[in-house]
Amino acid sequence: MAPNLPPALSGIEALVFDLMGTCTDWHTSILSAMREHPPPPPLKDADLPSLALDWRTAFFRFIFASFNAGEQAPDIDVVHARTLDELLREKGVSNEVWDTHVREKLVKAWHLQTAWPDSVEGIRRLKERCTVVVLANGTTRLQLDIIRSARLPFDTLFSSQILQATKPDPLIYRKALESLGLRSEQTAMVAAHAYDLRAAAKLGMKTVYIQRRTEDPDEDMKAVREDVDMFIDGAGRGGGLMELADMMGA
Amino acid sequence: MAPNLPPALSGIEALVFDLMGTCTDWHTSILSAMREHPPPPPLKDADLPSLALDWRTAFFRFIFASFNAGEQAPDIDVVHARTLDELLREKGVSNEVWDTHVREKLVKAWHLQTAWPDSVEGIRRLKERCTVVVLANGTTRLQLDIIRSARLPFDTLFSSQILQATKPDPLIYRKALESLGLRSEQTAMVAAHAYDLRAAAKLGMKTVYIQRRTEDPDEDMKAVREDVDMFIDGAGRGGGLMELADMMGA
Repeated sequence: MAPNLPPALSGIEALVFDLMGTCTDWHTSILSAMREHPPPPPLKDADLPSLALDWRTAFFRFIFASFNAGEQAPDIDVVHARTLDELLREKGVSNEVWDTHVREKLVKAWHLQTAWPDSVEGIRRLKERCTVVVLANGTTRLQLDIIRSARLPFDTLFSSQILQATKPDPLIYRKALESLGLRSEQTAMVAAHAYDLRAAAKLGMKTVYIQRRTEDPDEDMKAVREDVDMFIDGAGRGGGLMELADMMGA
Repeated sequence: MAPNLPPALSGIEALVFDLMGTCTDWHTSILSAMREHPPPPPLKDADLPSLALDWRTAFFRFIFASFNAGEQAPDIDVVHARTLDELLREKGVSNEVWDTHVREKLVKAWHLQTAWPDSVEGIRRLKERCTVVVLANGTTRLQLDIIRSARLPFDTLFSSQILQATKPDPLIYRKALESLGLRSEQTAMVAAHAYDLRAAAKLGMKTVYIQRRTEDPDEDMKAVREDVDMFIDGAGRGGGLMELADMMGA
């Protein structure tokens, strides 16, 4: 037990992690997949980093609209394919350079991601201190592919597919707590997305925000800091989950 | 890829493991918990090893009767408590030495188990080659406690609680395959229990039997050998899952 354990982390038996963006650097992975092909005109190589970010934003917009419409969680591969097509159409990109084959490879690229520099060792250390699990939207197969490629040593994975509910629906957090056999105050949700933590807090879970450069571009960070129990800078090898491990005395 | 990959292991993308008895030596763990207290008369210390085996047999008998009666899977802690009480009553043991507190500790002891000598390193090696998951009856919390105490590095855990079906119901194997996103012939069930492998084979999964000294005392091993795709001796540090890893070229 750390001598100066912050109140938010006292009595925590399990850390419940969001996965993509929180533990992994999808941007570098997707960008490197994009760069395996010539950029599709009129886009230039220099446009690809922001294209990847726009794709992620379009993905979230689609998921939230679908959730607000009360729809069942759609297959993440299908959403990535559809939002990429729309995005390229908006930018006047024809299908000649990035043809069906290339687009399919880019959609598949979301399955293979690299960890942020602090994630693997951070999770390994945290695991010595408490149960560490994933709770994220998507299929179990997507989560398996991501944790295996990023070599993230979680205890187990809870997907929206297996729990049959989608974040930020309170039901998915409740089902995760039931599976963990823990009360909400014995757990902390760890994410780089404010919407996720705000939903977890409503259930009584503690909240740890990891700020990642690729995530929450439209959030007011001052408001986020006020809403969460703990706000951690996710930059650099010693920050993010390593800093959380330091605080947990792990 | 191993040069001499056996046909049964060719094209396997995921190994699906039974947990208790297959990967862990529950007998040593339970026996050591029993020995923390004086033996309850008329039992002597020398009776405890067979008492532990009888408890496991009574547990399986209860679970099968409950499954055959079409009942929902009962809580494993409750079943362990009830079968221990019955067993001690049969043996004429009073509740004076092993009182409620001791019995509760023994029931809880099933949550903390040690791995067989080949399990941790075997799974670590197999994980380099394919997806490795648990598919076992019980709650997710029980599985988390077991894999954390035994330090078994699985990719994820499928419990009967989370899949809402109980082995040997075909539904639980089907749900596991659906979550893995794989066809049955791309997977192998690995277990020290013939009933489990016979059920998995009916779905088209490959089957790997690991013979453990504590499991399947009533099975005819000649019949088991004929029914499974692969039969592995689970004794010793280099057998069991290490031998499977050798065969997979992991």
